[in-house]
Amino acid sequence: MSEQRISETALLALATRALTAYGMPVADAADAAGVLVLADMFGIHTHGVSRIESYGERLDLDGINKTPRIEVTRIAPGLLMIDGDNGVGTLIGARALEAIMQAARETGIAAGFVRGSNHFGPITPYGWRAAEAGFASIIASNATTTIAPTGGKEARLGNNPIAFSMPNADGDHVILDMALSVVARAKIRDANKRGEKIPDTWATDRDGFPTTDPAAALDGILLPIGGYKGYGLSVMVDLFAGMLSGAAFLTGVKSWVDSPEEPQNLGHFFVLIDTARFASAGELASRMAAFTDIIHSTPAADPQRPVLLAGENEMRSLAQARADGISLPKDLIDSLEKKAAGH
Amino acid sequence: MSEQRISETALLALATRALTAYGMPVADAADAAGVLVLADMFGIHTHGVSRIESYGERLDLDGINKTPRIEVTRIAPGLLMIDGDNGVGTLIGARALEAIMQAARETGIAAGFVRGSNHFGPITPYGWRAAEAGFASIIASNATTTIAPTGGKEARLGNNPIAFSMPNADGDHVILDMALSVVARAKIRDANKRGEKIPDTWATDRDGFPTTDPAAALDGILLPIGGYKGYGLSVMVDLFAGMLSGAAFLTGVKSWVDSPEEPQNLGHFFVLIDTARFASAGELASRMAAFTDIIHSTPAADPQRPVLLAGENEMRSLAQARADGISLPKDLIDSLEKKAAGH
Repeated sequence: MSEQRISETALLALATRALTAYGMPVADAADAAGVLVLADMFGIHTHGVSRIESYGERLDLDGINKTPRIEVTRIAPGLLMIDGDNGVGTLIGARALEAIMQAARETGIAAGFVRGSNHFGPITPYGWRAAEAGFASIIASNATTTIAPTGGKEARLGNNPIAFSMPNADGDHVILDMALSVVARAKIRDANKRGEKIPDTWATDRDGFPTTDPAAALDGILLPIGGYKGYGLSVMVDLFAGMLSGAAFLTGVKSWVDSPEEPQNLGHFFVLIDTARFASAGELASRMAAFTDIIHSTPAADPQRPVLLAGENEMRSLAQARADGISLPKDLIDSLEKKAAGH
Repeated sequence: MSEQRISETALLALATRALTAYGMPVADAADAAGVLVLADMFGIHTHGVSRIESYGERLDLDGINKTPRIEVTRIAPGLLMIDGDNGVGTLIGARALEAIMQAARETGIAAGFVRGSNHFGPITPYGWRAAEAGFASIIASNATTTIAPTGGKEARLGNNPIAFSMPNADGDHVILDMALSVVARAKIRDANKRGEKIPDTWATDRDGFPTTDPAAALDGILLPIGGYKGYGLSVMVDLFAGMLSGAAFLTGVKSWVDSPEEPQNLGHFFVLIDTARFASAGELASRMAAFTDIIHSTPAADPQRPVLLAGENEMRSLAQARADGISLPKDLIDSLEKKAAGH
């Protein structure tokens, strides 16, 4: 597949026009596109502008609201409730983040709880924007059910992503953005194609028992990291992002694939902490330098593979994208151009 | 080993007297003991009053300050910095939690960042107290280095505990309190005694490579849950609890065992969210009932082992301790009595 380089500005304009062609107002389309373009700049192409087509399918079916009225209510000095009115998730996420940053600037810490949302992209772009503005963050979302409670044999929990970020004065913010399964389903599919066994920590068979057979695993359910620990993390994310926000939770979250015309009512939460309140910029910079030095100077088991911090690959990809543009499949750019031109 | 039942009141009085005998003022001793007694009521005996002896050793060496002046500074409406002045960790933790709950009542969300602390017990007691007062919580601490960064062959991170809690009107709060290693070192020791191999996800050998040999693992380093995910979580906890609070972090945390006379300068952080701001008590109760029902009704792989929520065993243990008293080894009670009597 041939790749093409495109600048951030050009990709943002293109993605915005494509979303506008699906019926979104231009200001909303630009905000929704901004998160997806950042995802591509971080190298997270599975969650970048390639998603516009599937967002568009649901916009066409009115499964997502083209013209949502996003409501932000300040329920306490440090707490915001955000009703996304079933808009595109990355639009709701971007607007929520803005509002929460404003509140956190006043109170030192603020949290936003979002309901009525949809897939809001990867979390790294939000964590990075928060870090750029000096905020440490904890951000998470619930998701369609793909994980079983420990000891159970039915998926009742999402592979809920959770992310933490900490600003670094040198621009290399530390950002951990992870889902809770040991591996993505694609990795099991790959093992199946190659006819290889898988570790029994990756998935259960359809009866809820750990399996080393990738075919049985594909028929079964993904296992979370650390067994009951990852299961517990998935529960807690859904309690914060779904239950407390007033969004759908657990099996109440509608499947994107099975019911494309029904609102998913996903929930997210964002906690932002203003690091400028803690110490001078110089002091924080020097602590971060000391911290990252200790990690980077760890002797590596394999000298060819030095120790990295969470987000380091993404920060490198971002720097490269800014310098040289973003490399994307030509087919993808062509199909966005076609959509944007109204074909 | 013979066990003895003792009531909460009697154990609290006894633990308080023992800590007083090590030189702590009685009000401080009572607060420090309260967390440990709760740990025992939750069945977490490894982190209960059995710790008083090791706390006492360090109090005797002045490695922990007997009469700390704990300073709470409100650096923003929703942010507190707490300097524990190297007091007993459970005293500092209990006082910090009180101050943060007060702030969170005003602002809806508040966080406290603690430096100058020591081992503050398990997190479940803090999460439970927060939940009893209607607060959802995220609480974590850094710790002495026992975990290597992914790909590294030296321990540079703690097995940092992190906990999440969500209040439930029926009293069965959901509390996840976990360390970040796949298993505790004790489990590897057990396998070694039995001459059994271990999964290669538990630990590395001394050269940083995953091993199935328990002897090599005991000579090596614990592995975190989910590989780079657990490593990343450990980093993020230390960035929040250590770096941001101004406490020691990573290899800067002194070993409790190797340098008992030196302050550890551990760091913790607490984020509390007032759930009463979100919806009426009745509405929250009904959402929690719906949530817990969905989890509990999951068909179990083994019908003898129904699906549980995080903290469920601890809540049962608490109910039993309240009804029948706390069961502890007679030796432990005897040694606390002896210490309390000044022998």
